[in-house]
Amino acid sequence: MSKVRVFAPGTVANMGCGFDVMGMTLDGVGDVVSVEVSEGDDLEIENRSHVELPDDIEKNVITPAVRALMAAYGEKRMVKFVVEKKISPGSGIGSSAASSAAAVYALNVALGRPFTDERLVEFAMEGEKLISGGTPHADNVGPSLLGGVVLLRGYEPLDIVRLPVPDNFCCSVAHPEIMVSTRMAREVLPKEIPLRTAVKQWGNVAGLVAGLALGDVHLVGRAMCDVVVEPYRKRFIPGFDELRVKVLAAGALAMNISGAGPSVFTLSADMDVAERVGEIMREHFAEQGIGSDIYVCKVSNQGARVLND
Amino acid sequence: MSKVRVFAPGTVANMGCGFDVMGMTLDGVGDVVSVEVSEGDDLEIENRSHVELPDDIEKNVITPAVRALMAAYGEKRMVKFVVEKKISPGSGIGSSAASSAAAVYALNVALGRPFTDERLVEFAMEGEKLISGGTPHADNVGPSLLGGVVLLRGYEPLDIVRLPVPDNFCCSVAHPEIMVSTRMAREVLPKEIPLRTAVKQWGNVAGLVAGLALGDVHLVGRAMCDVVVEPYRKRFIPGFDELRVKVLAAGALAMNISGAGPSVFTLSADMDVAERVGEIMREHFAEQGIGSDIYVCKVSNQGARVLND
Repeated sequence: MSKVRVFAPGTVANMGCGFDVMGMTLDGVGDVVSVEVSEGDDLEIENRSHVELPDDIEKNVITPAVRALMAAYGEKRMVKFVVEKKISPGSGIGSSAASSAAAVYALNVALGRPFTDERLVEFAMEGEKLISGGTPHADNVGPSLLGGVVLLRGYEPLDIVRLPVPDNFCCSVAHPEIMVSTRMAREVLPKEIPLRTAVKQWGNVAGLVAGLALGDVHLVGRAMCDVVVEPYRKRFIPGFDELRVKVLAAGALAMNISGAGPSVFTLSADMDVAERVGEIMREHFAEQGIGSDIYVCKVSNQGARVLND
Repeated sequence: MSKVRVFAPGTVANMGCGFDVMGMTLDGVGDVVSVEVSEGDDLEIENRSHVELPDDIEKNVITPAVRALMAAYGEKRMVKFVVEKKISPGSGIGSSAASSAAAVYALNVALGRPFTDERLVEFAMEGEKLISGGTPHADNVGPSLLGGVVLLRGYEPLDIVRLPVPDNFCCSVAHPEIMVSTRMAREVLPKEIPLRTAVKQWGNVAGLVAGLALGDVHLVGRAMCDVVVEPYRKRFIPGFDELRVKVLAAGALAMNISGAGPSVFTLSADMDVAERVGEIMREHFAEQGIGSDIYVCKVSNQGARVLND
């Protein structure tokens, strides 16, 4: 019997302009999943979190991710997971992705690492399919498994590019207590967009990737803006535009919606600024009678990893 | 009286997925413009090329570019240009851009360099406005002035990012004898595009910039594809899809339309491959009874420069 305990970090998908193709890894916030593998042929998932999870394992994101891995592995095993969720579902920092990333990472280690980390991304994406209604995405599971900034160049076939992040990127995330499902956030998006708007967006994507590669934090800040999706999704977030004015005045480089929202994140080049911005975000939502969880952390080059205890 | 002679290179705009936001600089092919500056207040342009240019200077791209520079300079001068065009108009490798880039570069040197090269891009863009019917573009004048790969992150204000290119990028350009005006090539484009298609395109843009920054030629090759504009413009280029199959089989990394076309360019990581691919392109058009000019050269980090003679 093999037992492994794994931490997989929270992630910020989209990063402004990089809708559906980019995500970055947070430091210190994430889910922990343990696995026990033994002879047999079954799957069990036990929840040891304060967070409620569906009793029916068919509704748990871990299930399709693990089934995809086991199908590729080709042998049968009794697989038992214990989940300690630290990220609330719907928080916009890749809650479901952290669980499925941790699960497939742990299972791969327990089986003797038959698969590469890139291959694990494909398995974990099956979990994302379950919640997004069919369309596969890797902009949370990619960075949660691999760390750093992850680009999804294409999906057919999956083409993953990992970009290391400069040391000094600090992220402040506010998760306001508003419920916006990924499905709802997708439904407000237009099916078609003006070509001119699309050109603006990919100019920003080019600038963002160049800024990361060149270590130019100010270019990253200028480029990290979303003219396509944000106009539709910011309506779910009370006072979004005013909040941005406040955090930029406090020294943040950029503010955007994290993933499908309603969380917002800012990027700063300094931890003191990131802390102050976190407070501004908390106050902003509090003024509107909305509680919020605030995470202030570095952007990390480290993805999922085994915990030794 | 101050006299300066300048070479400004040809350029490949768009680079596949980077429609309207990216261009790269060619080595060895370009226009030469000389300027004489003296006391007075007038503008003359003399053509010493085999290529015909409009007699009316109001129809010459150099005129608005130079007027913009002189307006910013704030003093009056007698400015006399001699143009030696080496790139045929409509060739798809930035013919008009090379002329206006060379003109403003030469004039800036003659005036004692009052402006940065980035500022010169803004002046040269006025020339591009004249031929594109009002919309300013810098994806040819940018690289012609600055060299390397130039990103236009945004236009309001102009945000120019220069990315050096790896040493071993070789470009083969075929300019088939078909006339496609920039205006015509713009008119076939849709005003709106599916969001899903736009996402694919900016995934490729991200991959292309990452590939350039990481020096990963194969990533550049995979990412350098255009799912938005090419489907509409390739119809102007006989046998476009078949030609691509042939050049990829011969070892090219990618083939795309250069600028608004009808020129096509390929990227290769090896000069021998680039030469062979040039021949394949020539034969391809010849089989259809179409003559073509072929340029095979390195991608260059050097933009406009003074010629010493």
